[in-house]
Amino acid sequence: MNTDSICALATPVGGAIAVIRLSGGRALDILAKIFRSRSFSTLQIENLPTRSLHYGHIVDATSSEEEIIDEVLVSVFRSPNSYTGEDSAEISSHGSRYITAKIIETLIRNGARQANPGEFTQRAFLNGKMDLSQAEAVADLIASANRATHRIAISQLRGHFSSELSLLREKLLRLTSLLELELDFSDHEDLEFADRSELLSLAKQIDERICTLASSFETGQALKNGIPVAIVGKTNVGKSTLLNRLLRDDRAIVSDIHGTTRDTIEDTIDIRDVTFRFIDTAGIRDTSDSVEQIGIQRTFAAIEKASIILWLTDQEPSSEEKTEMIKRCNGKSMIIARNKIDLNKSPIANSIQIDNKVFPIVNLSAKYDSNLNLLESAIYSAANIPTLTDSDIIVTSARHYEALLRAHTSISRVIDGLKQQLSGDLIAENLRFTLTHLADITGGAITPQETLSNIFSHFCVGK
Amino acid sequence: MNTDSICALATPVGGAIAVIRLSGGRALDILAKIFRSRSFSTLQIENLPTRSLHYGHIVDATSSEEEIIDEVLVSVFRSPNSYTGEDSAEISSHGSRYITAKIIETLIRNGARQANPGEFTQRAFLNGKMDLSQAEAVADLIASANRATHRIAISQLRGHFSSELSLLREKLLRLTSLLELELDFSDHEDLEFADRSELLSLAKQIDERICTLASSFETGQALKNGIPVAIVGKTNVGKSTLLNRLLRDDRAIVSDIHGTTRDTIEDTIDIRDVTFRFIDTAGIRDTSDSVEQIGIQRTFAAIEKASIILWLTDQEPSSEEKTEMIKRCNGKSMIIARNKIDLNKSPIANSIQIDNKVFPIVNLSAKYDSNLNLLESAIYSAANIPTLTDSDIIVTSARHYEALLRAHTSISRVIDGLKQQLSGDLIAENLRFTLTHLADITGGAITPQETLSNIFSHFCVGK
Repeated sequence: MNTDSICALATPVGGAIAVIRLSGGRALDILAKIFRSRSFSTLQIENLPTRSLHYGHIVDATSSEEEIIDEVLVSVFRSPNSYTGEDSAEISSHGSRYITAKIIETLIRNGARQANPGEFTQRAFLNGKMDLSQAEAVADLIASANRATHRIAISQLRGHFSSELSLLREKLLRLTSLLELELDFSDHEDLEFADRSELLSLAKQIDERICTLASSFETGQALKNGIPVAIVGKTNVGKSTLLNRLLRDDRAIVSDIHGTTRDTIEDTIDIRDVTFRFIDTAGIRDTSDSVEQIGIQRTFAAIEKASIILWLTDQEPSSEEKTEMIKRCNGKSMIIARNKIDLNKSPIANSIQIDNKVFPIVNLSAKYDSNLNLLESAIYSAANIPTLTDSDIIVTSARHYEALLRAHTSISRVIDGLKQQLSGDLIAENLRFTLTHLADITGGAITPQETLSNIFSHFCVGK
Repeated sequence: MNTDSICALATPVGGAIAVIRLSGGRALDILAKIFRSRSFSTLQIENLPTRSLHYGHIVDATSSEEEIIDEVLVSVFRSPNSYTGEDSAEISSHGSRYITAKIIETLIRNGARQANPGEFTQRAFLNGKMDLSQAEAVADLIASANRATHRIAISQLRGHFSSELSLLREKLLRLTSLLELELDFSDHEDLEFADRSELLSLAKQIDERICTLASSFETGQALKNGIPVAIVGKTNVGKSTLLNRLLRDDRAIVSDIHGTTRDTIEDTIDIRDVTFRFIDTAGIRDTSDSVEQIGIQRTFAAIEKASIILWLTDQEPSSEEKTEMIKRCNGKSMIIARNKIDLNKSPIANSIQIDNKVFPIVNLSAKYDSNLNLLESAIYSAANIPTLTDSDIIVTSARHYEALLRAHTSISRVIDGLKQQLSGDLIAENLRFTLTHLADITGGAITPQETLSNIFSHFCVGK
């Protein structure tokens, strides 16, 4: 268990207020050395109530006269009633870099050390304040940029995923005890195999639930990373204009949001709380020019990476084009849109037939902002996002997904073993594996230090 | 008096924690609509203790089911025991832009409005929690980037300047009442003039103190903005190398600090808690080339703007050069430094004589980092910063300086009037002006709305 005291600035520099966090066995002793406050100083540390708020001065006590660093408010939390489970404090100071640096320097000089990224949350996990999936939800919550990802993170933080895993664990334990009963029974009575239909039904139920959870990962990924959309079409059909229109007002805000959490800023828009990510493509053109050729390769690569292909045209495509596009977009959602309806004097088709299949066409004018709402609806529909309710559990972490896949493999072996009338010993082993894989998600079993470091190193310092 | 409730994000986005401030007559009613907490909700708002800390959920109560926006900690402050003097709250949420935007949106939907820059501090002033000079110190404190500016801001925030002004005010009031006594006396006894020596002595005392305060503005400005230093010398004497050496490790940190508060990032270094600002110059060379000529003009302009001239040479300057430099640097501090001592085999002079005056020379090697500490000491000494003690009051605000100058003009007229045996009526008017000018600093008299707007618009939102 950690007993050293850690401190970190939990807010970025440059605002009105800064918050410095302090946690650990000696956190309040360290605080007492540098904090002068009527309400704080009159009480013995052991008598300080949890969740109490104190006004006073942080002082530099090294010089003969105590030098005031800042007027602050300090929130005090007593173990175990704190975020980390340890004695801790939050110092709310003026948001000056000089002051925050000075306060942290003073804390360190008095026995605290600079916290590692995510170390406060890691301590919360190690002290049983939250399980691992909840700890991961904290990072997701901070990174959440739209309603969908925010709700998934809140749900996970509140333990909905953990409860679901508890239910699965109960069922697995019941299956294990039934199997043990069978083993006992077979020992005593020398009967080879008991009736295994109940065991099989239970195992299948468990597997089904594991598969449902695992399959939510696709949606989770789409919501978390944004759904990739490729706008393709010949040069001069107005792809850039359309993209600029779609990005409209969102652009500045969205770039701003993603700039803080991602390295590269992509063009993204939110349609009904879901983020769509536009993949850069070059126009498709018949050409032998090698530079152009590279552009076309890029377009095909973009189609590969996209979930949704938005095919923009300004006239009826040739049947070769149609066949080629259908081939390229195999298995992906395709939206066909016809631009420049403002220039079009002749009647406009509302659908197009390709290989005996009818595709609706969105007729629009990017230039005059006509029917872009119809296009947005079509994009949203193509994403095929299930309607989420509060009780839905969506797996967003690759670590969880992999654990679920491993659990699925193990429980499948249990099912096979039951069907093939294998001995209870062999089946029990795979049941244990299933339990372990699921426990990895919440960190219930012993979690390797490497896994923990990997999880918490992605946090910001101060959380 | 303001009674509407204001809210604002008081921390920058992108950290672990965000703090949202709320203040106003209905602040706690608004909070109660969106905050679900055991400790908060069980109490009537009028029974909530000041400085209490509550854990709970901020909810969006518009939908049929309440949607949780975030798990938060809320500090509650009851009027008048709060920063603003009003009922107020600080909501500490996860540092996600989505969450903070959502909480502020929810507060606004429930009756709060977005605060203007500095509006919390403005309310603190209007509600008598601090005077105007203290309010201004809050902004200075947030912007403080080194120990000197930090100490001045802390001292001003703690009211040292205000106390000094109170003392002056008392003396001025005593002078006024002595003058009134004289007027009464002259009415009754028909005597033309009383003995005015006590009045004169008191007025001179007051003026002396006002002048001392006003003259501290030069130091205040130097400390606040950094002391301008021009490095001049011929091309190839190593000016760039020297500058890079001086900037060393400080550079990244310093640029970082100033980038947040200033538009242009200048090369600055801190020597013993004082910031020095290097002005870009071009080398001085005898030339008829017009481009070079512009460079030399820039050097002379830099000398104009600098308080300290650092003249870098690598050999004995000619007597013409010496004379020219002395002429250019008239009235400024000049440091002469000889670079490249590593190349110098002959004995090196430690001083140089110009026009019968002896200047010490700092012999150094920028390349080998020799004697740069001596140069730093020389720069610090040349700045001629008085040793500051905690009781020293340094005026850093141009607004205060101007008010002090006006007060000086008025009290000088009082002194002249007393000397010239003018009538008490005329003198009393200038006494009133003096009082008003000093009161402008703390906002004791009625402060024009324009002045207030001007002061608080330079604050960040959320303070």
